[in-house]
Amino acid sequence: MSNKLVPFFEPRSVAIIGASAVPGKPGHEVIRNIQENGYIGKIYPVNPKGGRIREIDVWSSIASLPREIDVAVIILPAAATAQALRECADQGIRHFVLSSGGFAEVDEAGAEIQRELVRIIQERGLHALGPNTSGHTSTPQGFTSTFFPQGKIRRGRVSYVAQTGNFGTHTLKYILTGEHFGVARVVGLGNKIDVDETDALEYLGTDPETAAILIYIESFKRPRRFLEVAREVTRRKPVVLLKSGATEAGRQAAIAHTAAMASPDRIVDGMLRQAGVVRIADYTQLILAGKALSMLPLPRGNGVSFLAPSGAMLAVLSDYCERLGLHIPPMEPENVRRLQAISPSYIRMRNPVDIWPAALSSGVEAAYREGMEIVLQDPAVDAVVPVMMLTRETGVPDPGFIAELAGKYPAKPILVTFSGAKECMDEYKAALEPRGIPTFQEIEQPFAVLSIMERCRRAMNRPG
Amino acid sequence: MSNKLVPFFEPRSVAIIGASAVPGKPGHEVIRNIQENGYIGKIYPVNPKGGRIREIDVWSSIASLPREIDVAVIILPAAATAQALRECADQGIRHFVLSSGGFAEVDEAGAEIQRELVRIIQERGLHALGPNTSGHTSTPQGFTSTFFPQGKIRRGRVSYVAQTGNFGTHTLKYILTGEHFGVARVVGLGNKIDVDETDALEYLGTDPETAAILIYIESFKRPRRFLEVAREVTRRKPVVLLKSGATEAGRQAAIAHTAAMASPDRIVDGMLRQAGVVRIADYTQLILAGKALSMLPLPRGNGVSFLAPSGAMLAVLSDYCERLGLHIPPMEPENVRRLQAISPSYIRMRNPVDIWPAALSSGVEAAYREGMEIVLQDPAVDAVVPVMMLTRETGVPDPGFIAELAGKYPAKPILVTFSGAKECMDEYKAALEPRGIPTFQEIEQPFAVLSIMERCRRAMNRPG
Repeated sequence: MSNKLVPFFEPRSVAIIGASAVPGKPGHEVIRNIQENGYIGKIYPVNPKGGRIREIDVWSSIASLPREIDVAVIILPAAATAQALRECADQGIRHFVLSSGGFAEVDEAGAEIQRELVRIIQERGLHALGPNTSGHTSTPQGFTSTFFPQGKIRRGRVSYVAQTGNFGTHTLKYILTGEHFGVARVVGLGNKIDVDETDALEYLGTDPETAAILIYIESFKRPRRFLEVAREVTRRKPVVLLKSGATEAGRQAAIAHTAAMASPDRIVDGMLRQAGVVRIADYTQLILAGKALSMLPLPRGNGVSFLAPSGAMLAVLSDYCERLGLHIPPMEPENVRRLQAISPSYIRMRNPVDIWPAALSSGVEAAYREGMEIVLQDPAVDAVVPVMMLTRETGVPDPGFIAELAGKYPAKPILVTFSGAKECMDEYKAALEPRGIPTFQEIEQPFAVLSIMERCRRAMNRPG
Repeated sequence: MSNKLVPFFEPRSVAIIGASAVPGKPGHEVIRNIQENGYIGKIYPVNPKGGRIREIDVWSSIASLPREIDVAVIILPAAATAQALRECADQGIRHFVLSSGGFAEVDEAGAEIQRELVRIIQERGLHALGPNTSGHTSTPQGFTSTFFPQGKIRRGRVSYVAQTGNFGTHTLKYILTGEHFGVARVVGLGNKIDVDETDALEYLGTDPETAAILIYIESFKRPRRFLEVAREVTRRKPVVLLKSGATEAGRQAAIAHTAAMASPDRIVDGMLRQAGVVRIADYTQLILAGKALSMLPLPRGNGVSFLAPSGAMLAVLSDYCERLGLHIPPMEPENVRRLQAISPSYIRMRNPVDIWPAALSSGVEAAYREGMEIVLQDPAVDAVVPVMMLTRETGVPDPGFIAELAGKYPAKPILVTFSGAKECMDEYKAALEPRGIPTFQEIEQPFAVLSIMERCRRAMNRPG
């Protein structure tokens, strides 16, 4: 792979320009993060004071560094960054993470420094992420350049590209503390003087560690090239994108944020669709879709079955599916007959499945287990959502039976949601998600996610 | 108040026909529920075996009961219900909760029994909730007729009416275990042979305990009268309604559930809007809107301010607000100046508020506290959403400062959401919600709820 991002994601060695012995300082925390993520490459802290930082010998100057360092993370005041960049280039370093802020996002003086960085990069043939980036992460290499005290970052199958510092810091913190899925690569684009979303998409598109790509963007640096690359990548793996500035209020806020002119939204929308990119509207969906795409294959079709302990939920969720374009197919007569056999005769079983009478007569676990197995076996059903009734009073089955079914029918995604006591939901989440079965607190969420997955599937299989 | 529901919600005495000494049986659990909710009226268990149940003397027959019992809860097989109803009527009981299933929702034999119940009710001038109801609850009286082992039901300011057994059982269980708000009245309508959504709306419309009414419905029994009542009630308090059957798939599921023909949806939609009823589309919004309406006054206008630690979130949420019809007003120059004063000069402060630079320079608590106070003081701002950045690493302020601000500006709802570590979010929820400040796990939710509140406000203030 000749993509310029390869050394960023697979660095054999890294220099930290502006390393600090003081815990809490960015130049210290970045080293702690690298160590805690189990990086096996070599780390070169640079600080004029020398000594040792976190048990690593410190180099007193850039000029004293050995040759053949893959990446340098520069954590210096904006004004000192250009000089450091030049000195590193003199030492043969070609890839840089420019972590500091204080550039074009701040004022004209910062913009002038940023232009200087651009000149150096172009003259010397360097590559840089940032400036003003929250860094990047590559869990297969146990590497990260973030200085946000993230700790060990869980490895997973999805990768994120974000034109915001929040993703790699606070949002990732939420994923690590509130969810059970992990990430392959994370890139905070920052001010994009060099590496941009198109470079990232190109790298991730052929990255075997990345099963799906999720992007947050405010403006495209090279829209035409982005679409070209996207057209290819989206045939191989899902590309889900949130772009702000869809409305005038959002456009104003995006301009205030990155000072980049947002493109007219309707045009963007059509072009993204044509390129197979699945555009979403909510920030939270970046997390929920990431969870599902990290754990599940795409369903093979648009046929959904769900089981709920309430006719009302069946009705409301049927409405919801139809609005989302999800199909609730009728099942084969034999499977309808089998569903009928597990249920009291008074209820006419169909898809979606009212599991309440069966749960009353045969117990919660038996009803859900048999009901789910029947719908999983139906050829018209591509994905299954059990709305688990979970209260101590009605009996909480061991969630293992869902994991068994997921193992037995690996091509048909199972997305779990709930009705009942909060602590039981939390138990299910903690038990199922580490085994690769996503759960969702709210009954609408699995369907919102399935509709994103269905759009990804259609994009991958589109003609032309 | 002459509404026929008064004795249901304010019963001075209750008979349990089909009381059971066996824990777990509905005829036992209903008594446990009543006791655990602190009911101070008299309880008359009826069971031919006599003896004592849960330390209450059992009456061996309906005929032996004293006169002047307000309500009887009949928990007998469907086939025995009609006879019990007659005997109770002979004893002067006029109000009934018919808890058993096995009527029209089951088969033609059940439908025939149900018709018999209707005849008895009409001939004897009785009133009945159900059959096939999960019961009703009246927390100001510490009373409930549900046999689902709910335990103590938290008292609150919102009331729910639901044409589904799930609400009063599993959904209420979620509210009691996963949320901190409570309810005033809850009604499970069941098969609606007598008490229907219109009766409930009429009662709740003048009920001083009920600040807002939330309804789940599949079909209207008396649509014209419902709209008449709604037109009145919606000028006094919010009425939020979820009706399934909005799509063909939902209509099919609703028919399978209650066998009632759903009305053409577009007509329903327009008529509800004209009557000031705020229709929602998601089941989860019944919970989220209930939380906000139980804790907060309606905002006085459509002006929203929010503070987020990320320009990306500001942009995405601005898009979201515009889609929802929420206005993000510019602030008074003096307040913009004050915001600027708490922030590094490089960022041009505006509404919505990028609080990140201020948090970096002054600390998280000071930045949010001062930023929130400034926007709360702006006359164009009617509600405020802080997206709290919460990670141990950046410092988690004591949430008390938000409660202080809420107390100082009681007319301006504050809805809290988060970016950061899950355990910090949980701490905030546990600290703030019991003090009347709703929190929301997902950053979009406060705005979805504010848009429902804004529709309620407009409905209350509509001309005509």
